Amino acid sequence: MKLLEERIIKDGQVFPGNILKVDSFLNHQIDVELLSKMGEEIKRLYEGSGVNKILTIEASGIAIASIAAQYFNCKVLFAKKTKTKNIANSVYKTQVRSFTHGTEYDVIVSKDFIGENDKVLIIDDFLAEGNALLGLIDLCNQAGAEVIGCAIAVEKGFQQGRERVEEKGVRVESLAIVEGMEDGKVIFRKQ
Amino acid sequence: MKLLEERIIKDGQVFPGNILKVDSFLNHQIDVELLSKMGEEIKRLYEGSGVNKILTIEASGIAIASIAAQYFNCKVLFAKKTKTKNIANSVYKTQVRSFTHGTEYDVIVSKDFIGENDKVLIIDDFLAEGNALLGLIDLCNQAGAEVIGCAIAVEKGFQQGRERVEEKGVRVESLAIVEGMEDGKVIFRKQ
Repeated sequence: MKLLEERIIKDGQVFPGNILKVDSFLNHQIDVELLSKMGEEIKRLYEGSGVNKILTIEASGIAIASIAAQYFNCKVLFAKKTKTKNIANSVYKTQVRSFTHGTEYDVIVSKDFIGENDKVLIIDDFLAEGNALLGLIDLCNQAGAEVIGCAIAVEKGFQQGRERVEEKGVRVESLAIVEGMEDGKVIFRKQ
Repeated sequence: MKLLEERIIKDGQVFPGNILKVDSFLNHQIDVELLSKMGEEIKRLYEGSGVNKILTIEASGIAIASIAAQYFNCKVLFAKKTKTKNIANSVYKTQVRSFTHGTEYDVIVSKDFIGENDKVLIIDDFLAEGNALLGLIDLCNQAGAEVIGCAIAVEKGFQQGRERVEEKGVRVESLAIVEGMEDGKVIFRKQ
């Protein structure tokens, strides 16, 4: 998506260790006008696929998921990160390893809000190693829900996330795929 | 706001200890159609007040803040909860006590995204003791930003939050004010 790539070039910041910061418009400060155009594009990519629920994970997936849901006329469910040891029986639970922080955390959704009638589109802001997406796919599988696919704002194409998600038979669409970062410059994969 | 009150009566759940759960439509699963109407109402309440930034706190404030921002044509900034001891110089930091969990946590926003030209509307899903709002007001004060007011989805009118926020000279608007809960029934304050 040209508009997002241009915005990353203009306002994204590259730091050593392949770190790309987009917190001026995507995951700290949020440009809702841009997110609206991204939601429209996600709808175009998944047109006619029968999506009736959007699943994301707190916190930085919530804004893009909520705005995209306006185009799908469906509800959003956001999975919660928790450290509580005693999880109620009323939730599905999975474990996610944070690539950034090197820690593991539990992720839960209530059984009340996802089930076998759901055709789920998973939305998140970033795809790197794919751990969050794999966790969300696992939650859908536990619930018997169908995963229609994933929609990602920014994919790090040089990491293994897409491969690991596609191995599960799940479609991945990313609005911008970063091929590499050199001398503070972002190089995108042609789509 | 009649629509929200009706929805709370229909889908809210009351538990002992004055706990009101609205996680089927507001803060776990999210009904974006309802949030859109709430955003419209918040815009009506703050029409002409010059709001040019919306501030909220992760995670459950993000959806309502992002959708409301579409009506204000402004950006959203969400404050992050953190346990990191060594906070960078590039952030404003405050401390918030969680009424629900009885713990304290640090809340930060980047200095890059809030400053003295900002006229801030603070949005959150719940107002009870007001600790989160007071923290967000403190962040605005540190940044030299003007706080135009707060917009809340559900206020617990029998707790001290409104009083504590209004004492700071800050306007509070709540779309639904719960006066009390008796025998599993929610009673609203007339507005």
